[in-house]
Amino acid sequence: MKNVIVGQSGGPTAVINGSLYGVVKEALSHGAEIGHVYGMIHGIEGFLQDKYMDMGEELTAEELELLKLTPAAYLGSCRFKLPEDLTASFYKTIFEKFEALNIGYFFYIGGNDSMDTVSKLSRYGAQTGSDIRFIGIPKTIDNDLTLTDHTPGYASAAKYVASTVREIVLDASVYQQKAVTIIELMGRHAGWLTAASVLARKHEGDNPVLIYLPEADFEMEHFARDLEAALKKQNCVIVCVSEGISDSKGTFICEYGDEALVDSFGHKMLTGCGKVLENFVRNRFGVKVRSVELNVSQRCSGMAVSAVDVEEAAQAGSCGVQAALAGETGKMIAFVRVSAEDGDYRMECRTVDVNQVCNQEKPVPMEWITGDSNDISDAFIQYARPLIQGEPQRVMEDGLPKYLYRK
Amino acid sequence: MKNVIVGQSGGPTAVINGSLYGVVKEALSHGAEIGHVYGMIHGIEGFLQDKYMDMGEELTAEELELLKLTPAAYLGSCRFKLPEDLTASFYKTIFEKFEALNIGYFFYIGGNDSMDTVSKLSRYGAQTGSDIRFIGIPKTIDNDLTLTDHTPGYASAAKYVASTVREIVLDASVYQQKAVTIIELMGRHAGWLTAASVLARKHEGDNPVLIYLPEADFEMEHFARDLEAALKKQNCVIVCVSEGISDSKGTFICEYGDEALVDSFGHKMLTGCGKVLENFVRNRFGVKVRSVELNVSQRCSGMAVSAVDVEEAAQAGSCGVQAALAGETGKMIAFVRVSAEDGDYRMECRTVDVNQVCNQEKPVPMEWITGDSNDISDAFIQYARPLIQGEPQRVMEDGLPKYLYRK
Repeated sequence: MKNVIVGQSGGPTAVINGSLYGVVKEALSHGAEIGHVYGMIHGIEGFLQDKYMDMGEELTAEELELLKLTPAAYLGSCRFKLPEDLTASFYKTIFEKFEALNIGYFFYIGGNDSMDTVSKLSRYGAQTGSDIRFIGIPKTIDNDLTLTDHTPGYASAAKYVASTVREIVLDASVYQQKAVTIIELMGRHAGWLTAASVLARKHEGDNPVLIYLPEADFEMEHFARDLEAALKKQNCVIVCVSEGISDSKGTFICEYGDEALVDSFGHKMLTGCGKVLENFVRNRFGVKVRSVELNVSQRCSGMAVSAVDVEEAAQAGSCGVQAALAGETGKMIAFVRVSAEDGDYRMECRTVDVNQVCNQEKPVPMEWITGDSNDISDAFIQYARPLIQGEPQRVMEDGLPKYLYRK
Repeated sequence: MKNVIVGQSGGPTAVINGSLYGVVKEALSHGAEIGHVYGMIHGIEGFLQDKYMDMGEELTAEELELLKLTPAAYLGSCRFKLPEDLTASFYKTIFEKFEALNIGYFFYIGGNDSMDTVSKLSRYGAQTGSDIRFIGIPKTIDNDLTLTDHTPGYASAAKYVASTVREIVLDASVYQQKAVTIIELMGRHAGWLTAASVLARKHEGDNPVLIYLPEADFEMEHFARDLEAALKKQNCVIVCVSEGISDSKGTFICEYGDEALVDSFGHKMLTGCGKVLENFVRNRFGVKVRSVELNVSQRCSGMAVSAVDVEEAAQAGSCGVQAALAGETGKMIAFVRVSAEDGDYRMECRTVDVNQVCNQEKPVPMEWITGDSNDISDAFIQYARPLIQGEPQRVMEDGLPKYLYRK
């Protein structure tokens, strides 16, 4: 009988703990094949420092259920890149630690970089004849992993973005004066999250009327023309932009702020593209303008979790355990959208080669970016809407959501 | 039989429409004394332009229920200061418009400035022998109105702040590295909303460990000492600050950013105190630092509405109608906390002289600001916690909250 070890890596999401729940719950149900279920504290980096806990021993059934709806990474996370050289002493050390804990199954929940970790460990394991099985469980709000229809964590972030943009539209619409609101959303290279702002629209022509993704070049003069046209049609204009928009020279728009921003102590100041655009609009158009950066709440808010997302996240975890028990290794769990006869959305898990996923990025298809590169197609809406459905019942305490904290 | 007119003014809140619902619902139930219930579009400013709607005729019962949980101001708002001189022609004009619509009851839902409107209209009415009754219904997320225990809108904003700060604490705690997160909250002169961040704490010593309100002077070197001490105790330090913190010279901290911030087009750039502090911490401490501005979502998010708040907002509206029908004018509805024998929280409405409310501000009591002016007392927690209780059932559609839009 072998033991399981599971870790979380990279940035938090609202449902990364849903996947952790899925791994632990499924593993504990296989008492005949699996002994202990260990959790690495702070990912592979913490595990190297011998930081881990026994999930089965230390968590009650009630705590495990609370874990499922707790945002951010319960076990803690890390950003730790494994050596490229598989002969590095790091690998010998870490496999000795696996041996000492009698590990047979390794699960790592994360994005691109985490899949790189799974890839390297599985390749080292294959080289050295280890029988440990290495499985990656996908998570990222960026939705930029390849070979999967979508990624756990994206749907809840998308639902948060769409809900919040809808509220900001209501807020910005209360006055009669002409006003521009620029909402800066996460996404350095892929615009999936910004694209989700289109879901906030109630009808054709409704705000947000301009949406810019990093997949298309962003030119200030082009933006000025788009905005001028929009302001002719309506008083309240909401613009949604990805943090990573850049111009045809490849310069990030936010860098046009950083270049010259120095505070009163003489220090260079970092700012986002929303602030740069706000300033541009104020000076060019002379209208009331505000920029709003949704910031980390996009990835950590538990307020707009999608029930579809949390169930799929848990399913990805349990499928990972099943795949490992079936003998698979060097794989990532991926989602396939199956076309149901009734037209309803349905999703199935499969495994894909983790080496083909790591260090790759999946951008929003260019054909989904419409208008004059300032709008999002209906095809995207059809893709995204099924993912944001349903609201799980949250546990509240003293008027606030009750979450599980590591002791 | 006379008609009602009701308007909304000032910044939006999550429950200002709850008060509108209360006024409309109560007024419609007095069919013997009240005819039409009109709503001013964009407050008194829009009404001057003859913009109004018939709430009873144009809204279905279902739409009225939806209105109750729709954030921001359904009727639109304005920031419009009435002339100080009561002999100005403005007053003659607006009272002629009241006459033309056979108005007998005037309700204005808003904060300080809106109460000033109620005060002036009621004083002009008294001077000219008008029998129109003028009642103010309080609303502000700032909670800075005097003569009332608290103000509708504050509790939901406080609940949003506490919930979001708790999530950001979870997010910021996932890595092992030393890191500082600065959360900038609304409140230019009063720190009620920032104080609510203390509700996010799970136990003594939990984040946010430093909380700064505008009521106390903020000194950079004092802050540096506080932060140094906090970083000795823990790796992850969360700091909550009001946007309006200022130093002993009376200079807003955000102005230390504005002074020298010029973008690459040579334009002066506005920034918040969070960014200024972020930059200060980065340069002084050399640790990872991030600033987060919760921004307009604090006042317009429907995601963390308090059931207590929405019911009290509606009650303020219906009490306003009852007071007007009982012959009162020149009053604002206020909340009194009654000490129940069972220790439970209970609230009653009363009327107060609107002239004593308008243009006044109620700060957080200095005795509730503890530590070295960097913490909040238990007395505040006892005051605020009952207000954020309960979650109303929201109507969802296509995975997003369904709100009522004006046609």
